[in-house]
Amino acid sequence: MISDRLKRQIDFIAEIEKLKTVYRQNGIIGGKRQENSAEHSWHIAVMALILSEYFPKDIDMIKVIKMVLIHDLVEIHTGDTFLYDDEKREEVKISEQKAAGKIFAMLPDDQKKDFLDCWNEFELRETDESVYAAVLDNLQPIFNHYYTNNQNIAGKKLAKSQIIEKKEFIRNFSEELWEAALEIIDKSVEIGLYNNS
Amino acid sequence: MISDRLKRQIDFIAEIEKLKTVYRQNGIIGGKRQENSAEHSWHIAVMALILSEYFPKDIDMIKVIKMVLIHDLVEIHTGDTFLYDDEKREEVKISEQKAAGKIFAMLPDDQKKDFLDCWNEFELRETDESVYAAVLDNLQPIFNHYYTNNQNIAGKKLAKSQIIEKKEFIRNFSEELWEAALEIIDKSVEIGLYNNS
Repeated sequence: MISDRLKRQIDFIAEIEKLKTVYRQNGIIGGKRQENSAEHSWHIAVMALILSEYFPKDIDMIKVIKMVLIHDLVEIHTGDTFLYDDEKREEVKISEQKAAGKIFAMLPDDQKKDFLDCWNEFELRETDESVYAAVLDNLQPIFNHYYTNNQNIAGKKLAKSQIIEKKEFIRNFSEELWEAALEIIDKSVEIGLYNNS
Repeated sequence: MISDRLKRQIDFIAEIEKLKTVYRQNGIIGGKRQENSAEHSWHIAVMALILSEYFPKDIDMIKVIKMVLIHDLVEIHTGDTFLYDDEKREEVKISEQKAAGKIFAMLPDDQKKDFLDCWNEFELRETDESVYAAVLDNLQPIFNHYYTNNQNIAGKKLAKSQIIEKKEFIRNFSEELWEAALEIIDKSVEIGLYNNS
């Protein structure tokens, strides 16, 4: 007989399988389907390992990794909300809080607290780790759009200014990463992914 | 102008997008498509955070996370090889080595060395970190098969004995995790996912 503790942990591991069915607005390379939040989270986690040198603060890398791996788990209940849908994003905040409470409550109490604290820290974006995680979470779609030649599938073409507005907080934390983001945004405009307005 | 170093890092980040198109033998929940190696890697990374208490050794968790996040990147060149296809697994070893050299060479030299060392360490399975990573890599499909009610898509039903043979190394490192694995394998036999032989 396995312990109740391990049983709860395995139930959680089984539950988060569902994140592979939460599809985002953007596609994957080859364009055959939309990206899901599990593979998006994987991509950001690898980026966290590679780009830390551009984030000029000492950070607890395990905490960053934990944040990026679990930041989207609430979407199992709420679905993905498009970054540029401001109205819906405001509405969804309360349901995301509830969803976080629900999903992390599957874990043993100590891990529940740890994961919920980590998720809340990411949402508040006040600590160095959560800012670095947010920088990565905001860079990945810019790279994805350009390199898969596949902007968002929402139907409405984004304007460069909309993207800059959402992402320019990156500049405060890393000049280099912001410069890279701008360069890719401009190349995306050139190939017609975004409106030049 | 962004630095050549950052350009190489971004090229690597763009390249690994392709792992989302490398499909494995098993499905995802809902059964609409096969699981890909990027979301498989994400799943194992979350498991690494949750299950470390069952691995009775002090481990460098960042190294484990790095291993599980990058262990399948070679499949961008070689494709996924089914665990139970012993002949092909032997054949593919050399091409995986070449693929590792090729993909990690995209990174700046220091990161290339770091990632290649990490990948080789995982393959050799001689250190505590690589054994823990291998335990997780071998547990995840057992959980996936049972919880998605979707065994392998290879067409041939696996026998319980085949699975035990591949996975029983887990027992040497964690009695609890092996017990959990056995319990789920038995439940999978009961619902007809594996042959009871």
